[in-house]
Amino acid sequence: MTDFGLDDVFVGVMKGVIARVNPEARIIDLTHAIPPFDILQAAVKLAESFSYFPEGSVHTIVVDPGVGSERGIVCMQSQGHLFLAPDNGVLTAVASTHGHEALVEVTDRGLFLPDVSGTFHGRDVFAPVAARLAAGLAINRLGASIAEIERIDIPSPRVNPDKSFEGIVLWSDRFGNLITNFRASAVKSHFGDERLVFRIGDKDLGGLHKSFGDVPKGASVAVAGSFGAVEICIREGNAAEFFQARRGTPVSVFAGTM
Amino acid sequence: MTDFGLDDVFVGVMKGVIARVNPEARIIDLTHAIPPFDILQAAVKLAESFSYFPEGSVHTIVVDPGVGSERGIVCMQSQGHLFLAPDNGVLTAVASTHGHEALVEVTDRGLFLPDVSGTFHGRDVFAPVAARLAAGLAINRLGASIAEIERIDIPSPRVNPDKSFEGIVLWSDRFGNLITNFRASAVKSHFGDERLVFRIGDKDLGGLHKSFGDVPKGASVAVAGSFGAVEICIREGNAAEFFQARRGTPVSVFAGTM
Amino acid sequence: MTDFGLDDVFVGVMKGVIARVNPEARIIDLTHAIPPFDILQAAVKLAESFSYFPEGSVHTIVVDPGVGSERGIVCMQSQGHLFLAPDNGVLTAVASTHGHEALVEVTDRGLFLPDVSGTFHGRDVFAPVAARLAAGLAINRLGASIAEIERIDIPSPRVNPDKSFEGIVLWSDRFGNLITNFRASAVKSHFGDERLVFRIGDKDLGGLHKSFGDVPKGASVAVAGSFGAVEICIREGNAAEFFQARRGTPVSVFAGTM
Repeated sequence: MTDFGLDDVFVGVMKGVIARVNPEARIIDLTHAIPPFDILQAAVKLAESFSYFPEGSVHTIVVDPGVGSERGIVCMQSQGHLFLAPDNGVLTAVASTHGHEALVEVTDRGLFLPDVSGTFHGRDVFAPVAARLAAGLAINRLGASIAEIERIDIPSPRVNPDKSFEGIVLWSDRFGNLITNFRASAVKSHFGDERLVFRIGDKDLGGLHKSFGDVPKGASVAVAGSFGAVEICIREGNAAEFFQARRGTPVSVFAGTM
Repeated sequence: MTDFGLDDVFVGVMKGVIARVNPEARIIDLTHAIPPFDILQAAVKLAESFSYFPEGSVHTIVVDPGVGSERGIVCMQSQGHLFLAPDNGVLTAVASTHGHEALVEVTDRGLFLPDVSGTFHGRDVFAPVAARLAAGLAINRLGASIAEIERIDIPSPRVNPDKSFEGIVLWSDRFGNLITNFRASAVKSHFGDERLVFRIGDKDLGGLHKSFGDVPKGASVAVAGSFGAVEICIREGNAAEFFQARRGTPVSVFAGTM
Repeated sequence: MTDFGLDDVFVGVMKGVIARVNPEARIIDLTHAIPPFDILQAAVKLAESFSYFPEGSVHTIVVDPGVGSERGIVCMQSQGHLFLAPDNGVLTAVASTHGHEALVEVTDRGLFLPDVSGTFHGRDVFAPVAARLAAGLAINRLGASIAEIERIDIPSPRVNPDKSFEGIVLWSDRFGNLITNFRASAVKSHFGDERLVFRIGDKDLGGLHKSFGDVPKGASVAVAGSFGAVEICIREGNAAEFFQARRGTPVSVFAGTM
């Protein structure tokens, strides 16, 4: 997972380095379309995605605005998965939810390419280290144990005195579905069996549905999304365009009927 | 093949699931850039592409506006290839041309992920089933045989009383080449050895050429495209922009000279 | 490496053909986002990237405005790597820097798909030949040796009488970093220990830095980029937008202080 996009040779060259170091490594692209430097988005998407991969996977995250500065690089083991990343908070969501079984700072320069550039550690550091981890190198060979990673603030919804929840849109997906920072499970446990209304802008949406299939084509609907977040959707339409929403757009949910 | 794009983690997570279920599976991306819900485009591109893949390939198509509704999921064997797709017409072009050797509805929930979401069957249903098919699971283990798939209407050209053909632009490619719904072979057999004129907007193009190489740089030309369709092109230029054409833009062909 | 993009099935179909011919071939995408027909960009990026891949790699470059015309196809061995490409100059930068150990024109049609289209040699010629090379086919089985490839002009900086260097922006990357045609090593050997000023538009930037980390967030900086070129960057910003720069935008460097 990187914020490199696919328009340059960055991702391809990283894979070339991996193939040099470990010809047997199997590489899967999680995504390279994290917006540049968007550590929050990378952190949340990583936490939602990693458990669908085989145990022992080496999740290599290069969203790294601090490349070339003094930020460290860490390797964390959690739930039997390995996470190799700059120590900039991108592992916050995984660590907060699952803790870790091992955590080291990656300092053994003998594992890197001979010449480490100041701007492309994906190629010079992350790729060769990931390739060696995938070949079975033990995490404690990378450097000394540390106690904690850097953390970022992951925005969580606020509970109002009237028991309503106030959250935000985090981002939208390819289809224009608006991913909020409400966890569907949290909404359900907070409100129990009460009937719900979601509000975005001046629009109210009734209930939390399992799928778009519950509403007619073109209707807007709040859905318990496939990664656990509440999503505001328009069936076969584009909610991001319709609601002109982006990160930070307020969304609320309260008990009631429409 | 999906309409998921590469901006989200959807495709990566599907591959993670495949790797969990079948670590030996080899995954090739046909494309993930089918426009959202464009079953017609997926159907035609699949039919044009599948035979270039090894026999026994498991073509997994997730263009699925009806996810979470009551649409079925089917697996069809045709020409020694397997096709796993929502039963929404996306297999129409393959089935119309080649028929099928086997066809089942996919109903065995024991093959799916334990929790099937209402919005991401690519991950929860298609990926694990495709992984098992690639590992050799027999198609009849997926569910009961059915007689027919759902079909969509694939627009074909109209023959006018004056013997001219009237068709449309289906879409354009990366280079701005306009892919029409004329099959080059149908045009040739209809008109025989007569000289041809293609008309798009108020522009006439003479003849059906084998390649852009037949005309000077910047000239427009009708080409027998590499997947069998007639394409309207500008050599080293962008016909989609020049002709302001999109799906449905009329194109005709008639015998004559310019 | 192609200029096909990922919106169509072109790249996927090439991989299908490779898998048919050589099921063991490991395929890595260098990039498919070379702008259409931009031989210069492909040539430079290839030369910067290839050595990060394993020796023996078959670098297959399909940036081919002349497809269907009389241009030839060549296979060149250089530094133990194989390069399969149209003979249109796209191998200029590799050949100029490293020479070649073997060079043949690819003419054995028995290695191609049975029906070679006029517009998609990536599928019909390059993919099956690359697959066979990856399986160990000797380069001299492709066709007869030739002495030279076609070359393009790769713009190099000009040295002025006052000893300043004048170059240009070549392109920008995903982050908006402006890649110039200055090699950092050439700048350093030309100016030795003198202090440097880079000028783009009416903006002067002091010194050639190893990383963005040397300047505050939002500041512009000239960096010795990770592939050897001088890059004009804005730390965590977009220099391409800020400077409104594109290919050909003049950049100069001279001894001095700001």
